[in-house]
Amino acid sequence: MTFFENTNHAELSEIGEFGLIDLIDKSFEIKHKETNKGIGDDAAVVDFGGKKTLITTDILTEGVHFHLSYSPLKHLGYKAVAVNLSDICAMNGTPKQITVGIALSSKFSMDAIEELMLGMKLACEKYNIDLIGGDTTSSAAGLFISITAIGSAKDSDITYRSGAKKGDLICVSGDLGGAYAGLLVLERERIVFEANPNEQIDLTPYDYIVQRQLKPEPRTDIVELLQKNKIKPTSMIDISDGLASEIKHICKQSELGCRIMEDKIPIDLQTENILKELNIAPTTGALNGGEDYELLFTVKQSDYEKIKDLTEVSIIGYMTEKEEGIYLITTDNKVIEIQAQGWDGLKKEVESSEL
Amino acid sequence: MTFFENTNHAELSEIGEFGLIDLIDKSFEIKHKETNKGIGDDAAVVDFGGKKTLITTDILTEGVHFHLSYSPLKHLGYKAVAVNLSDICAMNGTPKQITVGIALSSKFSMDAIEELMLGMKLACEKYNIDLIGGDTTSSAAGLFISITAIGSAKDSDITYRSGAKKGDLICVSGDLGGAYAGLLVLERERIVFEANPNEQIDLTPYDYIVQRQLKPEPRTDIVELLQKNKIKPTSMIDISDGLASEIKHICKQSELGCRIMEDKIPIDLQTENILKELNIAPTTGALNGGEDYELLFTVKQSDYEKIKDLTEVSIIGYMTEKEEGIYLITTDNKVIEIQAQGWDGLKKEVESSEL
Repeated sequence: MTFFENTNHAELSEIGEFGLIDLIDKSFEIKHKETNKGIGDDAAVVDFGGKKTLITTDILTEGVHFHLSYSPLKHLGYKAVAVNLSDICAMNGTPKQITVGIALSSKFSMDAIEELMLGMKLACEKYNIDLIGGDTTSSAAGLFISITAIGSAKDSDITYRSGAKKGDLICVSGDLGGAYAGLLVLERERIVFEANPNEQIDLTPYDYIVQRQLKPEPRTDIVELLQKNKIKPTSMIDISDGLASEIKHICKQSELGCRIMEDKIPIDLQTENILKELNIAPTTGALNGGEDYELLFTVKQSDYEKIKDLTEVSIIGYMTEKEEGIYLITTDNKVIEIQAQGWDGLKKEVESSEL
Repeated sequence: MTFFENTNHAELSEIGEFGLIDLIDKSFEIKHKETNKGIGDDAAVVDFGGKKTLITTDILTEGVHFHLSYSPLKHLGYKAVAVNLSDICAMNGTPKQITVGIALSSKFSMDAIEELMLGMKLACEKYNIDLIGGDTTSSAAGLFISITAIGSAKDSDITYRSGAKKGDLICVSGDLGGAYAGLLVLERERIVFEANPNEQIDLTPYDYIVQRQLKPEPRTDIVELLQKNKIKPTSMIDISDGLASEIKHICKQSELGCRIMEDKIPIDLQTENILKELNIAPTTGALNGGEDYELLFTVKQSDYEKIKDLTEVSIIGYMTEKEEGIYLITTDNKVIEIQAQGWDGLKKEVESSEL
């Protein structure tokens, strides 16, 4: 087999998901001139003659992306739609349509599917999305949800990961680490519940972070806010795998380095408290915890006045020459190289440490 | 739960896949004026300003749509792409792009994934398709492939299931029942192989039908042939679930009945021989066996002269008033109501009768 170059029959686990996507990207050529951008960003860009069309696909699989023991199906349906819309936002576009593929085993009742679809509908209503097609089928085991989201944007508005320039300000919407903190709480309660199913669990003290994990929101409002304030990001990505992993994507594709200021990373108080309780540094949670679905983007320094007072946006650093590397400047002024442990890695560690 | 109306907490097995899709369709409204057609045909139709865009999603799941014991991964990758392109053909459009979602368990090696991707690439090369994005992820068990195909067509060329008129001629491309006959052979050999793994199986006598099952081709050539001959079908669908199921879709959505002539249904000699050997009437295989991915379409009677000599097209019947029902006229002139046992039903029967 020489379809992928230089893999030397490596195992998938060595190559990883990003490695695999890179290999696939290199092995397929683009043939149509209307295909402006294929693999390698949050969504593909296709020119059908009017505005540009953005297209993205994501899969959620049971036991990997969610556990039915603590993911209510309605939330799951909502989240499955939300994370795909987030990819369209990350291109600075407006999501418009989705197609849905669902494979599920016979253990699911019609009522369960209704709950799932109800969640999808809630997300479609909230974000003004047409569900235009899909496929439902049975699976030998487990639930799989595959969604393709379609959106549009003016050519001049589309924001790629590769557009950052030296000196650009690095910005992030909302706050980080909450979805990860929520997952840790849910995992902890799941284990308590499995040991004693009669124990009633009160998640009220964790309402914000649990919501962050179970029902993330795509930041269409940030895309609108930036447009209203005439700010065109130079690069953008959504935070699905953690800040560290995403800033590395922007640096790699823009061929730059960066400095992130630890004290500027926005972390909610509830997130901070629970992470400390679990002996995890909040910054580690924000850097490596995923699924916040906030937007990470860069803007020109000349946009500083326009962006500095937007309450939903934090300026957390700046872009440098590639040679200067990718570093965190800590609150006590240490300079630490940012490692992208990434969501998957962290999740596995958590799972294996708990099971 | 009252999300779906009038389901009375029925089980999924009672409602079935088509029932579920109907329920989903009724529960979601279309909000964007550029969404011309949502659920209910082979692909959705979206107007991005130039030509119309066609979008369709299909899932293949291990143990349901394929068994790895007799589906080589290269063929499987090819087929996964082919069946999605077929849905674009069924709208009388030209497929252009795909996104691919793959969820797979740790039992798969990188070499296995290469084989799968190689098959996808072969199909993309043959049919001039851009792979523009996707998602790869792990699954707790089994292999899931979800593909979204995107194509385009001039508005005036798009063919819906609902456009047939009384008196229109019913046509089909290629020949039918072959993929089903191929599946039966492969299932038979799998059982022989499992009983005695050392026995070398010679599939040469079944090359055509095995190919029909493992490596179906989307009929982009038929779409081109019809356009070249200035024939605009009045309705069209691809045959994934069997002729009976598909003609019922056209009749239902066009609010008509039909007559199909048994002696006009095109069946290859190899298909006929193996079905007879297995005590299955070839017509039953053609009517209810699925996965041929031929095109079933209707044309105006006035197009008869243009269509009658196209070697790849057979005229097999005509459309009637709805009240006249959906009937097969047998070779010995009996009139039998066409029951859509459908592919899934037949497959289950075969499986349960063999296991």
